[in-house]
Amino acid sequence: MMRLRIDLAYDGRDFHGWAAQPGLRTVQGELEEWITRVLRLDDPAQLTVAGRTDAGVHARGQVCHLDVPGASEQTALDLLRRLHRVLPDDVVVADVRPAPAGFDARFSAIWRRYSYRVCPASRTPDPLLRGHVVALRHDVDLRLLDEAAPLLLGLRDFAPFCKAREGATTVRELRELRATGHDDGTIEIHLLADAFCHSMVRSLVGALLAVAGGRRDVAWLERVAAHPERHNEVPVMPAHGLVLEEVGYPPDDLLASRAAEARAVRTLDDLRQERA
Amino acid sequence: MMRLRIDLAYDGRDFHGWAAQPGLRTVQGELEEWITRVLRLDDPAQLTVAGRTDAGVHARGQVCHLDVPGASEQTALDLLRRLHRVLPDDVVVADVRPAPAGFDARFSAIWRRYSYRVCPASRTPDPLLRGHVVALRHDVDLRLLDEAAPLLLGLRDFAPFCKAREGATTVRELRELRATGHDDGTIEIHLLADAFCHSMVRSLVGALLAVAGGRRDVAWLERVAAHPERHNEVPVMPAHGLVLEEVGYPPDDLLASRAAEARAVRTLDDLRQERA
Repeated sequence: MMRLRIDLAYDGRDFHGWAAQPGLRTVQGELEEWITRVLRLDDPAQLTVAGRTDAGVHARGQVCHLDVPGASEQTALDLLRRLHRVLPDDVVVADVRPAPAGFDARFSAIWRRYSYRVCPASRTPDPLLRGHVVALRHDVDLRLLDEAAPLLLGLRDFAPFCKAREGATTVRELRELRATGHDDGTIEIHLLADAFCHSMVRSLVGALLAVAGGRRDVAWLERVAAHPERHNEVPVMPAHGLVLEEVGYPPDDLLASRAAEARAVRTLDDLRQERA
Repeated sequence: MMRLRIDLAYDGRDFHGWAAQPGLRTVQGELEEWITRVLRLDDPAQLTVAGRTDAGVHARGQVCHLDVPGASEQTALDLLRRLHRVLPDDVVVADVRPAPAGFDARFSAIWRRYSYRVCPASRTPDPLLRGHVVALRHDVDLRLLDEAAPLLLGLRDFAPFCKAREGATTVRELRELRATGHDDGTIEIHLLADAFCHSMVRSLVGALLAVAGGRRDVAWLERVAAHPERHNEVPVMPAHGLVLEEVGYPPDDLLASRAAEARAVRTLDDLRQERA
């Protein structure tokens, strides 16, 4: 059995998210079907992914893995070449290679980096970018955004910004949250954390833009961030502005221990959920 | 009668080009229909455009004009606001304003700037940009491209790069032709000329990339460029990599004389065509 690491990008527009669902077009479903066919597997391919993106969310640096019986280096090369030929043009596999020992696309990951891109109301939106840049109805004051962002950084409970899953922890470490302006007037917000809860990126961006757009002030953001559960004043931004940009892994010799650690936390979560 | 200048951008993918054609979705057709409706015009709106883009070609800085009986500054503001509401999301009107005296979107223009963007074969194409970045099957040597581009600059007969129109001149002045690399590995070729003949940009880019991809050498390009008519070794690149970026006009006091000049050349062309 050989584990293969697959790096890929996709346009999320015409997908019902990553996770396979019967009767719906999903990235996992599309990939697993083609991999099973191309490798002529007896059992359907099963992918494990680093970031389960929601419906409409894009990815430039998604990572997943797959265990293939009797695979070799050559299998990886063949798979890459053949997937290039058969996949629809909204999924692009960038690389397929044998995974290092201990690698788990989900549990070995130490961080995920997302971007969210918007066009302020005072700028004309570029129709060529409308699939991944959200046109706002207000302007964005980058000074206010820079002032508000640090309030959300660090290891904290992101419950006010998450869709609750009973028993699951919403404690995360947000390590980067900053905005950059593009030449075309659009603004890109960059977020990096060990992991993100469901709807967390879109809620953080919604809260920040409420402040940067002048509808809320920093005191509001502080109050919201201290709330013990999902806060109903936090707007959740549309999916199509969001891109999973990159997934970070530790050096190869730490892959296995990191995976064991993350799996333990997740198992604890699952136990808590069962009890709840 | 007031002349309005309209600045707009569009994603050319789902349009059969700019020019209205019965039964086909075109940018002109879409705009004229909505303008006629929104302004409740007795006679259908008739637009004159700076750059008649082909099927599949995009625009970020297209310019057109329209004569409206009894219009005022307020008409321009109202039209802009209402078009924002009703137009489909692949056409974005950036501005509508009263045109200065002597302005003609087509004949007053002194230059057109286009871009053509490609992704070399060694880079993973970004699926989010696939609508306007052409994935190549070869790499691009920017050094070769920089060496070849100057050979095509200046006032010359671009017949080898144009679809012939009997009697029409193919003499143009190509003032800029250069490539820039984006951070994502894509390459953008910038072209600026007084005007472009039919298929000229896509042929120039095709010829340059043949050299920059190593399939042809500079001697070939020189031979092709000296050919008296359309050269069949010049590849015509696909439409979707091409964007009309900007149209240049002279200062307001020169608009009318420039239009008269350009109209005279065009009339001469038309006369020649009639005779041919």
